[in-house]
Amino acid sequence: MSNAILLAPGPVQLHPEVQKILAQAMIHHRTPEFDAILKRVLLNLKFFFQTENPVFMHTSTGSGGLESLLVNLLSKNDEVLAIVSGKFGERWADMAESFGAKVHRHQVSWGKAVSVSEIDSFLQKNKNIKLVLCQACETSTATMHDIKALGEMIAKTPALFLVDGITAVGAYEIKMDEWHIDGLVAGSQKAVMLPTGLSFVSLSKKAWKISEQANTPRFYFDLRKEFKANQNGETLFSSSVPLVKALDFILNRIQEIGLKKHFKQLKRRADFTREIAKQLKLSLYSSSPSDSVTALNVPANIDGVKLREHLEKKYFVTIMGGQDQAKGKIIRIGHMGYILDEHLTETMHRLAQALKDFSYDINPEEIKNISTNWLEANPI
Amino acid sequence: MSNAILLAPGPVQLHPEVQKILAQAMIHHRTPEFDAILKRVLLNLKFFFQTENPVFMHTSTGSGGLESLLVNLLSKNDEVLAIVSGKFGERWADMAESFGAKVHRHQVSWGKAVSVSEIDSFLQKNKNIKLVLCQACETSTATMHDIKALGEMIAKTPALFLVDGITAVGAYEIKMDEWHIDGLVAGSQKAVMLPTGLSFVSLSKKAWKISEQANTPRFYFDLRKEFKANQNGETLFSSSVPLVKALDFILNRIQEIGLKKHFKQLKRRADFTREIAKQLKLSLYSSSPSDSVTALNVPANIDGVKLREHLEKKYFVTIMGGQDQAKGKIIRIGHMGYILDEHLTETMHRLAQALKDFSYDINPEEIKNISTNWLEANPI
Repeated sequence: MSNAILLAPGPVQLHPEVQKILAQAMIHHRTPEFDAILKRVLLNLKFFFQTENPVFMHTSTGSGGLESLLVNLLSKNDEVLAIVSGKFGERWADMAESFGAKVHRHQVSWGKAVSVSEIDSFLQKNKNIKLVLCQACETSTATMHDIKALGEMIAKTPALFLVDGITAVGAYEIKMDEWHIDGLVAGSQKAVMLPTGLSFVSLSKKAWKISEQANTPRFYFDLRKEFKANQNGETLFSSSVPLVKALDFILNRIQEIGLKKHFKQLKRRADFTREIAKQLKLSLYSSSPSDSVTALNVPANIDGVKLREHLEKKYFVTIMGGQDQAKGKIIRIGHMGYILDEHLTETMHRLAQALKDFSYDINPEEIKNISTNWLEANPI
Repeated sequence: MSNAILLAPGPVQLHPEVQKILAQAMIHHRTPEFDAILKRVLLNLKFFFQTENPVFMHTSTGSGGLESLLVNLLSKNDEVLAIVSGKFGERWADMAESFGAKVHRHQVSWGKAVSVSEIDSFLQKNKNIKLVLCQACETSTATMHDIKALGEMIAKTPALFLVDGITAVGAYEIKMDEWHIDGLVAGSQKAVMLPTGLSFVSLSKKAWKISEQANTPRFYFDLRKEFKANQNGETLFSSSVPLVKALDFILNRIQEIGLKKHFKQLKRRADFTREIAKQLKLSLYSSSPSDSVTALNVPANIDGVKLREHLEKKYFVTIMGGQDQAKGKIIRIGHMGYILDEHLTETMHRLAQALKDFSYDINPEEIKNISTNWLEANPI
């Protein structure tokens, strides 16, 4: 284990095998070797998304994937309901406005899950809504929304349900088809455990029909073109060869482990973090915590910005702080990526040390022991 | 030297140091360490583009960079003159049409450079042209256009001159400011010698003014937003950390070597390829050959598709063939990336062997000797 620890909600620590793959000599994306990898990856992504529909890759950040869903489905002046429960919800709503949509923002208090019945009544009263946008996990508040219930409800309306699964798909159960999700996005640097650089998107059959009529101009993110290219065994543009090779490793590995067991590993890290947080006398920020990232309230007399910086500078642990209204008030610890038990114990140990440096009443060695004991008592 | 050789016009062979950097443990893009790298890279990109204007990075393929220029500059129904001299010219013209432009296609025979005076007369007669699009090097035909002359001529008109420099910037002299280029694009997997995943774009002052009025909807590629983020020491979206770190190495290295000497290395490879081609009795496809990639005519009685596949399968050398009208008729050998003299000699040796397997009258050992001798007689 290296001394530096990165437990942010993306980018995440890489599997040693991924690091090796990224260092391999370049191969061309128009070779039999890469053709076989691409074919396998496109198939395994369907398993990963739990869908029968094709899943596409864009060379972009996760935000590119969010834009892809919008430009493939929106027509000018379409009405959009954006569930805004944090920074990423805001950004997606802004994005939809940039592409000419009339956006209704349903504001949810930071750290709270959206009320499904409120969305239901809104849709009952507003029959023209074409798209409903929601984060599966709002990363800025570490809050999980009830995607299953939203999906079942929205499926009964003409609206399409688009889900930002960037901090969710691959971290915990998101069943695209079964839960009636019409558009789903994932990003490489989160639960996919790779560097930033790939986004993944998929459309339901209901969404494909709309995409054929959508009049937003598009080219780089045009899924009709990408579909044709994939049918020919290619990506529309040059493939990010090292990332796709590493993705192949990750998807094969998760398939071997099985999604259920893979999700359990993340849940165990989330449970651990919440249990030790209690010992640290730090409360949860979210009332609907996600298994991909946990946000903890920083004690009122400590500046969260300074705490985070101190932890990074003195103890070489990178976690994230809060943004906007949560700035200085929370810390966010990610549970995605390649994380060993030592990383978990050491993070909590060093967090306790950092807190103690701010005159917080805590015994770091005791935290370390409790951490070790919890992990031993709760094996995977 | 590994047995496999990749001399395609992108992706290219990686510097061993780049491979090491790509394999490093992940760091977060909001850390002092990464902040310093980003700052340096954004500065050095200006040197690389030979411009005083800011150069931006997108997490995308080169095509994303081409889209970026269009969506930041186009307004609906704008008239565009697209110089189409091959596959990439066609694609850029298609892209402009997708974004609502009225596109005039100036067709140039494959393998020929565009006539500057023809473009001049067209612009004299068509005063409404807002953008002129041209490849610096049309990769599909390995043909270089006279960007300097075009730039000087177009600068006298109200039109903006947009240049696809994906197979040119960093491979040979392209002086953005001095040559009056209003929009320039480069891509990571070509002369920047990295894997696919980053595009680089810059706008002239003349172009910035137009971009403020351009009404094409945009978000992911919005340079106004990217500019603000860069001013704050960040990228607009998550940074591709490993690629940006590797880019830092490449730009520092080219600065140490000096652009002039760096370009000479590529020119030497191009000269070598053309000299040995003569010995192989293979003629040049292009009458305006580029220093980044060379296209050679395949002898009439040999199927170029089969030759390329044979070379890859039996001799582990990946070069590219022709596309569309040049399919089966040419092979294209790239000069960008990490290329040692052994790679050059071995490529020509194995190409001769492959040709001989197709009953071509050639002595591979003689070709190998001539290759070695030429490289020794023409040191860098």
